[in-house]
Amino acid sequence: MHTDPAAHPPIDAGFSLDAFHRGRFHLVQPVGGHRSGLDAMLLAAALPTDFSGHAADLGAGAGAAGLAVLSRCPQARITLVERDPAMLDCARRTLSLSHNRPLAERATLIDADVALTGPARSAAGLTDAGFDFALMNPPFNDGADRATPDPLRRSAHVMEDGLFEAWIRTAAAIVRPGGGLALIARPESLGGVLAALGRRFGGARIVLVHPSADQKAIRFVLRASKGSRARLAFVPALVLNDAAGPLPRTQALSNGAAALFDD
Amino acid sequence: MHTDPAAHPPIDAGFSLDAFHRGRFHLVQPVGGHRSGLDAMLLAAALPTDFSGHAADLGAGAGAAGLAVLSRCPQARITLVERDPAMLDCARRTLSLSHNRPLAERATLIDADVALTGPARSAAGLTDAGFDFALMNPPFNDGADRATPDPLRRSAHVMEDGLFEAWIRTAAAIVRPGGGLALIARPESLGGVLAALGRRFGGARIVLVHPSADQKAIRFVLRASKGSRARLAFVPALVLNDAAGPLPRTQALSNGAAALFDD
Repeated sequence: MHTDPAAHPPIDAGFSLDAFHRGRFHLVQPVGGHRSGLDAMLLAAALPTDFSGHAADLGAGAGAAGLAVLSRCPQARITLVERDPAMLDCARRTLSLSHNRPLAERATLIDADVALTGPARSAAGLTDAGFDFALMNPPFNDGADRATPDPLRRSAHVMEDGLFEAWIRTAAAIVRPGGGLALIARPESLGGVLAALGRRFGGARIVLVHPSADQKAIRFVLRASKGSRARLAFVPALVLNDAAGPLPRTQALSNGAAALFDD
Repeated sequence: MHTDPAAHPPIDAGFSLDAFHRGRFHLVQPVGGHRSGLDAMLLAAALPTDFSGHAADLGAGAGAAGLAVLSRCPQARITLVERDPAMLDCARRTLSLSHNRPLAERATLIDADVALTGPARSAAGLTDAGFDFALMNPPFNDGADRATPDPLRRSAHVMEDGLFEAWIRTAAAIVRPGGGLALIARPESLGGVLAALGRRFGGARIVLVHPSADQKAIRFVLRASKGSRARLAFVPALVLNDAAGPLPRTQALSNGAAALFDD
């Protein structure tokens, strides 16, 4: 039935095929490895709905956030940047799915370490001031993740000293003046993120993500502008669930039907 | 009628007498200068209700937060630290009000700059590891405040480079290991505050304060422990008002009838 095997790579026992944005795109993901979900959808929802430029998804994994940007923003282009061979394989399979072809035509995949600097970074395709926006869901870990025996999952969650500094340094280099940055991270990383933003990015808007109204935040999503001197602001928090399950706004954000920030 | 004039200083045209905690204590405040209100009450509400140690109110002004701690915590003692002569005068008048005497018996006033270091700081009465807790509502400014012509008000709101570093350095010096820090500040100061906390204080809990559910935060209140390695956490935000006015929790916090953090 498959006339073009290259465009229909087998989804064998090591992979799963997962639908996002109510089936508007699919991801090939490793079974048992780091799996994308709501984090990637919230990150993609941080871009302006009318974004029509060229964005870089730094540490793209299987491409969840990047494809979600393409799904939300019909004029956007994306460059997915990933260094992990297993995730690169997933991203390649994802982009070659016939179902994803309308989005994949606006996507490019780069095999590169986000922490590259100078000429090596440019040579990898991360051109200085070559992008309008950078988004990132940097690898992080916590006690629960460290306990998991799965090497791939552990690898995706290893937090390195200076990771935010290195990744945000790259974002500041590749984004044009006035361009944007969006990232999602754990609350305990906020100090390191704000230190790395420094004077590179300003006008940060932050939304805290709480599982329910009476629980502490588990994530924050931040959007900032390169070179802005505007003040940091915390917009009203996002509460994901009530006793009945995901709230309508959570579902809309997860499905690409809402923006996280007013523009 | 006044048998002890020193204990009943005149509240002349330059001052007002303001009730707090439903009249449990009063403050002598300068008319037209920096005036304490909800910020000081929220700061005092950040201490554990069962706090029974010796706290230092750094930059105490007329004593609002410090007296609110004494009002909430019947076993607590407080040292008010202030360098501004006009505010020191108000604090002295406040402590000498007969109405405040039950609280004032647990209060000490120190004329000192919070930014003092080394032997000068100790000589002023800010003894290394001499306190169980430090609280601070550091002077800050914003565009609106800069526009005010009142010199006293302007003085109270001048933000100096490194202020948080200097004040938190003092807090770390004077608080015993395991002791606490509470502060209230504007959201745009969070990066500087987290940098100053560094490894001095950990286990920070932060509550963002929003005027209403759909407005951005105007303050944050933070509590941390000296030497803790626990992670920063954002507890659910405090929303002050709905369309009908202050919410019950706002009133309870303002009146000393509630704690800001679970303990």
